[in-house]
Amino acid sequence: MKISSWRPLDRGLRPLLWVRGDLCLPKFERHVFVCHNARPADAPRPSCTSDGRSELHTQLQQLAKAAGLGARVRINKSGCLDQCEHGPMVVVYPEAVWYGNVRPEDAAEIVAEHLAAGRPVERLRVADECLNTNSCPHRG
Amino acid sequence: MKISSWRPLDRGLRPLLWVRGDLCLPKFERHVFVCHNARPADAPRPSCTSDGRSELHTQLQQLAKAAGLGARVRINKSGCLDQCEHGPMVVVYPEAVWYGNVRPEDAAEIVAEHLAAGRPVERLRVADECLNTNSCPHRG
Repeated sequence: MKISSWRPLDRGLRPLLWVRGDLCLPKFERHVFVCHNARPADAPRPSCTSDGRSELHTQLQQLAKAAGLGARVRINKSGCLDQCEHGPMVVVYPEAVWYGNVRPEDAAEIVAEHLAAGRPVERLRVADECLNTNSCPHRG
Repeated sequence: MKISSWRPLDRGLRPLLWVRGDLCLPKFERHVFVCHNARPADAPRPSCTSDGRSELHTQLQQLAKAAGLGARVRINKSGCLDQCEHGPMVVVYPEAVWYGNVRPEDAAEIVAEHLAAGRPVERLRVADECLNTNSCPHRG
């Protein structure tokens, strides 16, 4: 691998992520997807919201803007992220950091620690063995 | 930088992306977000769908599954990705490749070229200078 052909996306306190310049062009520094999925009450899998509205999303948006991150970070609504047993779910790209059981009161820590300072909030991360697998022990 | 502390996420024909193992744990090989936003007909910015339904999304899902990518790639609904003048919009992470003006008939090429073979579809990419900026010449 020729190091000279790689460039840093992110410096300082934020996670180091090197990409090949010709293939990878993240235009937001971070892109946060907040699940808004709402299933019927009797559905076999749980929902991240009860009615398609998310106070968590609102808090993340407002706090990111207040922290001066409005142009660098996008807080996005998403449909089902398929980690329903661990919801409410949030995933942050390009790092692909998955947060579970996230409450509106967690928004300030995610914004200050992860989005502003580049330190993922470990206490909210979903365990690796639970992600994207039918064998997750929390899945019925 | 100590190369020994980095690991490859993706090999072969796919884009090379190296991450620090303790911070970056992408659990889907690729995560595709398809904008489903629908504004009123008289809104100042255009919409990626007319009614919140997306045949493009359906095609990407079906073709990715048919290509054997069901467990490695997630095709996700998203809310507004804020590149409305270039819609219908799609963004693919972790590479952060942005596609614009994407039609259902483009789905097969995105699946075969990008999602399966790791070669972004250049003809569909939105120009860098148009992304995430109010100074995009296409923005009214």
